[in-house]
Parts: sequence; C-alpha cells; structure tokens
Amino acid sequence: MKAEILSIGTELLMGELTDTNASWIAGQLPALGIRLQWVSILGDDLEQLTEAFSRGLQRSDVIFTTGGLGPTQDDLTREAVAAALGETPTVQQEVVENLERYFAGRGIAMPSHNIKQAHLIPSATFVQNRNGTAPGWWVESAGRIIVCMPGPPGEMQPIWHEEVAPRLRDMVDEEVTVTRNIKTLGMSEAAIDEEIAEFFGHENPYLGIYSKADGIHLRVIARAKDEETARQMIVPVEAAITDRLGPYIWGYDAETPEEAAGQALSEAGLTLATMESCSGGFLANSITDIAGSHRYYRGGIVATSTRMLLANGVPAHVLEEHGVVSQETATAMAQAAKECLDADYGVAITGVLGPDPQEDQPVGQVYIAIAGRESAAQLQFRTPPRRIVIKRRVANTALTELRKLVVAEKGRYE
Amino acid sequence: MKAEILSIGTELLMGELTDTNASWIAGQLPALGIRLQWVSILGDDLEQLTEAFSRGLQRSDVIFTTGGLGPTQDDLTREAVAAALGETPTVQQEVVENLERYFAGRGIAMPSHNIKQAHLIPSATFVQNRNGTAPGWWVESAGRIIVCMPGPPGEMQPIWHEEVAPRLRDMVDEEVTVTRNIKTLGMSEAAIDEEIAEFFGHENPYLGIYSKADGIHLRVIARAKDEETARQMIVPVEAAITDRLGPYIWGYDAETPEEAAGQALSEAGLTLATMESCSGGFLANSITDIAGSHRYYRGGIVATSTRMLLANGVPAHVLEEHGVVSQETATAMAQAAKECLDADYGVAITGVLGPDPQEDQPVGQVYIAIAGRESAAQLQFRTPPRRIVIKRRVANTALTELRKLVVAEKGRYE
Repeated sequence: MKAEILSIGTELLMGELTDTNASWIAGQLPALGIRLQWVSILGDDLEQLTEAFSRGLQRSDVIFTTGGLGPTQDDLTREAVAAALGETPTVQQEVVENLERYFAGRGIAMPSHNIKQAHLIPSATFVQNRNGTAPGWWVESAGRIIVCMPGPPGEMQPIWHEEVAPRLRDMVDEEVTVTRNIKTLGMSEAAIDEEIAEFFGHENPYLGIYSKADGIHLRVIARAKDEETARQMIVPVEAAITDRLGPYIWGYDAETPEEAAGQALSEAGLTLATMESCSGGFLANSITDIAGSHRYYRGGIVATSTRMLLANGVPAHVLEEHGVVSQETATAMAQAAKECLDADYGVAITGVLGPDPQEDQPVGQVYIAIAGRESAAQLQFRTPPRRIVIKRRVANTALTELRKLVVAEKGRYE
Repeated sequence: MKAEILSIGTELLMGELTDTNASWIAGQLPALGIRLQWVSILGDDLEQLTEAFSRGLQRSDVIFTTGGLGPTQDDLTREAVAAALGETPTVQQEVVENLERYFAGRGIAMPSHNIKQAHLIPSATFVQNRNGTAPGWWVESAGRIIVCMPGPPGEMQPIWHEEVAPRLRDMVDEEVTVTRNIKTLGMSEAAIDEEIAEFFGHENPYLGIYSKADGIHLRVIARAKDEETARQMIVPVEAAITDRLGPYIWGYDAETPEEAAGQALSEAGLTLATMESCSGGFLANSITDIAGSHRYYRGGIVATSTRMLLANGVPAHVLEEHGVVSQETATAMAQAAKECLDADYGVAITGVLGPDPQEDQPVGQVYIAIAGRESAAQLQFRTPPRRIVIKRRVANTALTELRKLVVAEKGRYE
C-alpha cells in the first residue's frame, strides 16, 4: 500500500512553523506495512491543493493530510478534496449540534463560522475529534483513500490512534514491521556502538542508534509476514542489548524518564518531593505531565533565589560554607524537600543556568542529589551551556537516577 | 520569483528524522522577495527524484534541494538533476584533489567512493562546503535555477549564508516581503475572523490567522518594491486589528507570554513569585525559560498537595470553606506567594488537571489570581480537558494577565 502525506498551511511555507506531523505519521506507517513515498507541504491555496489531491489520487493508494480543517476562510482542505473529486459539500445537522454542544461545554455560543466544519461530501464520513472543533474526514473513492486530520498534534495524534490506525490495520495485508525502542542514559554513542557492534549494518532486523535529549536510543526494526514472527526476530537482539547495557537502560518504546520514575514510585507505593534551582521548574513540570502523578508527587520548590532556599529548610551554614552551586547544597536541598513534605524521596537539582557563570562555576555545571528512604544518590556533570539543554538534561538525569534508586531500594525492602 | 524545496533522504520518510531544513530555508526566503510555493520530501529514488526535478523546472523559478549529496550509492541528487536536464556528469580533477586534501587533513586516505562527489554536469558549478566532503551544486538551465545543498544543517546553513543567499540577492530585483505578527488570547479564532473579516482573502497585504498554544496569532504579510513601502501597507491593517481586538492583544512577532511578562517586570524593576497547583510547574518553567529571569523571578511553589499549600502560608480556613479549587484559594495563594518571598507580584493558579474531577468541578476548570502592588486580578475559565492544554492555556493566560496588570500599575505610578 503506497501512501503520501500532504501537510497543509501557509504558515508552514513561511518558516513560521516546522511541520512535525509528517514525520510523526511517517513513524507510524511501517508497523502498518504502509510505504510512504512522498510528503508535500502546501499553502492554503485552493488551486494548488486541488492539483495535489488530483495527482495524489493517481499515484498513491492513501493520502494523509494534516491542517486546513479550521473554521476560517483560509482553511481549504475540505474544499480541495471536494473539488478534486468533483463533489459538493453539504451541511450535516447532527454535527452542527455536536459543535454547539462542544462550545456550550465551554460556556460559549458557537461562532457562525464553525458551521464550515459541519460540511461533508458523499464520498466522505466524519472522523471524530475529541480534542477540538474540527472533525476529520475519511474519504473513499475509486479504490483510493483520503484521510484528512486537523493540524494541531494534540488533536491529530489521538485521532490517529483511536480512529485512523485501527481502520488502516483492518485493510492492509502486507508485510508488518515491528519496532522496539530501548532507551539508555550515561553511556556515549560511540561506547554503545562498540558494545553491540555486531548487530549494526543488518537489513532485517535493523538496528539504529539515535542521540536524543534523554540519552541514546536504540531502535530495533524487524519486518515479517506477521507481527509474532517479527517480534521473535527482535528477541535475541534485545536480549544482548539488555545483557550488555543493562544498568544504563531506563526505559522502552515511547516511555519518558518522568513516566519510568513515576511508575517505579507507584509500584513501590512511595511519595516524592522536589527542590530545584537551575532547572527552573522543568523537573516539576515533567513529573506532573504524567496523569495520576498527584498520587505520588507531593509538590516542588522552584528556588530561583537564596531566599527561597532558606525559606524552605536549607541550612544557612551549608549555603555559606559551600555556596548555592555545590553537591553539599544539593544534598541539603534533597533532605529539606523530603522532610518539609514528609515524602519518601527528595530530589534536588542545583547548578548554573546562565547566562552568566555563578560562584566561579561555568554555565552548564549541575549537581543532583536524591534523599531516599535508607540510601542517597549524588551526581554532578556539565552540560552544553544552552538553557533548554541544561534544564532537560539535568531533569531527565535526575528522574532516571530516581528510578534507579527507587527500584534498588524496593529490591532491598522485599 | 517562485521557489520550491526538495528535502531528499529515505530516512525522512521513515520518521527517524524530522526535516528542519525546509522550514529553515522557508524562513530565509521572504526577505529575499522569493515566494515559496511547494515543499516536497522525497526518498533516495532516482526515478522519483528525476520526476520531481522535471516538474519543478516547469512550475518554479528556483529549486532548492537538501540531502542526497553524500558519497554512497543511495545518494542520488546529482544523478537526478543530470537525468532531468539530460546531461552527463564528468569527474573534475581539481575537486578530486580538494577531497584528497580534506581527508589528508584528517590523517586518512580518501575512500574511493568519494570520487562521486567530484562529478559535475555542464550546467552546474560547485558550491563550496567548508564543513563537509559534499560540495553543493549551482545549476542554471533555460532560465531556471537548481541549488543542491548537503543535508546536515551544520553544513547547509553556512553554505546558504556564504554562497547561496548572496548570489540570490544579486539576482532578485523583485519584491521584498515584510511580516507582522499580532498575538491575541481570550477570543476564539472564528470570533476574531468575524471581527476583521474584511481583511481576509486579499493577496497583498495578506492576512493569515493561526491558532497556537498561546492564543490566536494574526499575521500580516505585505510585498512591495522596498521594505518601507511594505511596512506602510501593513499600518492600516494593524491599526484596525489593534482598534478592534486591543484588550486581547498581548504580544507581537516572535514574543512569547513569558517574554512579554518578563519584559514588563524588568522595565518596571519589580519582582515576581508564583504558586501553582494544576499547572504543575509549567508556569515556573516558562518564566525561567527567559535568560535573566532570575533578576525578577524570586521563585515558585508547585503545590500538588494540600499539605504543600498549608506549608506555604495558605490559610487552612480558606481551604476548608472554599476548597482547593476556588477563586478564594487562588487569591490566598497569590497573596501567600507574594508575602513569603516579599515579591511585588504574586501569581497563583489552581484548578482541575485531571484525570478525575475534583471537588465536583470538571477537568479543565481553572482559577487564576494575581496579587499586585495596589490592585489584584482574578480570572476563571474552562479549557479542553487535555493535560498539556490545561497547563499551557492557564499558564499563558496567567502570564498575559500579569503583563496587563504590571503595565497598568506602572501607568498609575508614573
């Protein structure tokens, strides 16, 4: 099954916004046995869009589009599909009512322009969008399929998982691809490359190595006639990776450091408190991205001033003797966080976020401390001096270290 | 001058790598008066690439390509250009010598397959690449231009600035494009669309409307023979927008809510403290994304538990009488934050982040309170019940409200 993607929106052509939908969708297709052949980014131009759909219908079995489903006059995806198929859109009353309910739920009346989103053509059915006003379109005509989805990733991705992927799975009977991501932190790309050298350079299963913000990811991709066979092809590779990189592995597939740490805490039935300076709330914000985190996360202090550290139980003499940016202060912060919220674990981060050096230490120098139930962990390192990189690296590292400690202590308690 | 971009590389179609070159180049073109009409992402497939070049030569004045210039057999950009133009590549001895020098400089002999990078066709000249082995191609044929650049941004961007942009500047005697972004929050896309309907649908100045995480952005794009004329064309449109949407406008161009609020505080020489529950640190993390925020941001409390609220000066009786999720508690939180850190402004957020309703209030119900120097602000609304949407909307709204209050109070003080 041959596919192409049309990412639609003039803002994508003005360099105002980078299209991430196409590569996200591209990443979903191999497992469905669908081959992506073409991606086009187009402006909100009816003629150009219509031409793109007409050509796509000739060369591809399925066309995925994102964007151009909004209520405004320059949202033209629906119109272009209708034009390419020579069909006429008509208003669907039940959808108008859904839209009115959606707005009512937010306590406002539906703006008249949103009627546009209730139009449909004979070859199309609606694809439900729980997270926005723009329903998608599923179009089938002359053996071709067009799937129109909204542009915001937060709307498109749930629609994909809940509506689009299942329908596609029922249709494709070609080779299936299974992917396994193994996520590590603390070992360099080159070192990992050496450890498991013999698995690289093969066609199937394929092993890829990617350097990401939360460490080095290993991606095993296997293709076979069915999912079970593909999974079996991955087993020996994953076994060897686990065997050789074990201590550095913190998560799998789509797992994030905050998810892995949260899961370890939930399973152990324990609680967490944080105190962070140079990560400026990135740590707390990551932890609370996980639904249900309120069950184990008691709260966090974002201490961007010494006054804030003192107000939250960090002893003045520690700050005087060792300075704010020190392992000793990190340790005191972790202890203070743990105590002031009576949590099982206290995680602390201090360091130099910049723009200027601090206490004669360079931008990017960071210290992490974790106060556990019976044991503790300390760690210091230096990241590249970019603000977002510092925040991300130190928070991700703190979370993976926390997970390690929780798992280790749980083992000891059992 | 009409342009299109071809981003070339099978890995871009596998979802392993997101193409950022296209949007980067797109951002460079308006100032050159070049209009981007099309972006395609293609695999390393000779037939498909040749077809793309042939079609591009018909519809565009200039084609920019990135990728496919490497030494391996699946780097086919050069071959496709040659095929599309019906020309035959030949080896250029002096380039072979350059390559040999490049490798010698790294203490290794040139791999034989790098010879590929020394090929040229009659219509092409080399574009020097200081940062890699792959020289670019500048092709002129029948009044059309093809510019082939390597894929790694670290190689492509210097080539663009040093080689490509200057040559283009000499050629385009055409229009210059000026863009103005006006950012609003609090009004729906459709409502704004109705408010300023008469400005949409014009070619020049063009008005675009984009729904973003920090509100609805309006983008006015004017093209003229020189920058000043283009600016003048934007004036009346911006005036009308300011006149009709004034209270909802919080920023311009690349400004973010945290930047706008931070700038207002810096200009007023005042300080800030925060206490947030349902935004879970998103507010603090946004504020600290701004370099220099430590000068006005004293710190933040991320209160994911009642215990944390009590520990930080929120009166127990307020929580008992009104519950955690209430305007009264938000107001008490703002006051407590302001006092405990002796800041000029205290910003507080409470609400229901979910997954479950809380105190009989639905997921997405949020309350904001700001304690200022002499005045205060309260605000409550309901966002769609998605975790990241709730966090982002409530934090962005709190920051835009803070900016408003700081500016207003500054006015009153002066």
